[in-house]
Amino acid sequence: MPRLKLILAYDGTNFNGWQIQAGSTQRTVQGSLEKALSKICNQHIRAHGSGRTDTGVHALGQVVHADIPDNRVDAPWQRALNALLPADISVLHASLAPQDFHVRFDALSKTYTYSLWPENRYDIPQRRNFVWATGALDLEAMDRAARLMVGQYDCKCFQNTGTPVDNTVRTVTLVAREPGQFPGEVCYRFEADGFLKQMVRNMVGLLVWIGRGRFSPEDVPTIIAGQDRTVAFPTAPPQGLTLVAVHYPA
Amino acid sequence: MPRLKLILAYDGTNFNGWQIQAGSTQRTVQGSLEKALSKICNQHIRAHGSGRTDTGVHALGQVVHADIPDNRVDAPWQRALNALLPADISVLHASLAPQDFHVRFDALSKTYTYSLWPENRYDIPQRRNFVWATGALDLEAMDRAARLMVGQYDCKCFQNTGTPVDNTVRTVTLVAREPGQFPGEVCYRFEADGFLKQMVRNMVGLLVWIGRGRFSPEDVPTIIAGQDRTVAFPTAPPQGLTLVAVHYPA
Repeated sequence: MPRLKLILAYDGTNFNGWQIQAGSTQRTVQGSLEKALSKICNQHIRAHGSGRTDTGVHALGQVVHADIPDNRVDAPWQRALNALLPADISVLHASLAPQDFHVRFDALSKTYTYSLWPENRYDIPQRRNFVWATGALDLEAMDRAARLMVGQYDCKCFQNTGTPVDNTVRTVTLVAREPGQFPGEVCYRFEADGFLKQMVRNMVGLLVWIGRGRFSPEDVPTIIAGQDRTVAFPTAPPQGLTLVAVHYPA
Repeated sequence: MPRLKLILAYDGTNFNGWQIQAGSTQRTVQGSLEKALSKICNQHIRAHGSGRTDTGVHALGQVVHADIPDNRVDAPWQRALNALLPADISVLHASLAPQDFHVRFDALSKTYTYSLWPENRYDIPQRRNFVWATGALDLEAMDRAARLMVGQYDCKCFQNTGTPVDNTVRTVTLVAREPGQFPGEVCYRFEADGFLKQMVRNMVGLLVWIGRGRFSPEDVPTIIAGQDRTVAFPTAPPQGLTLVAVHYPA
């Protein structure tokens, strides 16, 4: 069967995450997408995502592959899917991929952003579902800490319990602040060859604890070396997180 | 009674505009705000806005005044209101104003932005309620037209029927493109000493018709001189529009 490659944006607010849960009727991105794919193909089609996103997490560049019947190769995929998908999912790109392309195994790296709202007295309704309203933060301390999170190391201290993973060493190539989408917003960008379960949200949790003075930037190497997620910093809430891009060999 | 001045942000998507409609139970920003003010004051409080925003129009800087009883002067207004207001309204600033301050009569000028999504094949869910998805546009032609909309002139051609106004001359000080909030988005910023009913939306409607080649930028002076709103260009839909700021004497 020919293999279709899709790039999706979604507003994760009203989804129970990417992945279909067996025996559950909760609304998921994968479930909504498979429904639209299956309708176009007149048979059940499975959609494979580059990775799961949690409930409330957004995407501007989730990559998906799906095998489709030969007689649907020439369908106007982007238009057809966007006509069927709910308003909180959008297909940004659709193309045929090589038969052996795999969204998860072939991914070289991923980019996420996490948006913070450090203003104490208010946040803005336009961004409530897209930021963590933290209150005042020491951004300079956070930037120093961010630089100490870059490198190749065992990321166990940033991994939440769940699916066990054999190898928890990852190469983090970027943790850097950039302007947020709205005045008042602060954004951190993360790039790595892979992320463990809730890794970005745990990195942001530690950054915010440093921004509040509960840890110092110099604690970062010690926490990383400790390889222990039970150190007392929070997992940042999901709504600030966006999967921005998944990178593949050219 | 002491006069309170508020600056509000709101997501207009689920409001039937700013203004309370007599005899209607529809949800409005003014209605929601008066309910919160009245609860804090234990009596009915009227809120005066710098101008009405239509159904679906957003604000990042709507200015409001309200007279409050003497015994509430020291209330922690911003915190108290934000605790009572629905999630789609936020008080960015609260302060006591001079007794003779008037949000509408004292306003020197206003700033609006209008966001367009010119990508043909998709828009992104994160911005569906905040952009007009127009399809491809000739932005250079629109920029030339925008410059021809700046100046002091009779704006009748940009006024929708409704409340009659004696004087329809306005001084438009800025119509200029700037980067949008998300990649793929295009934004125009408008400043004037006042705007007629749906004036920005009509200016954007003409800009987009020019961007689609239905008029040329050189038609703008003729259309303005014609003082006739029945010329065939559309009123842009409300969701792209945001009231960004109202300016007062220092």
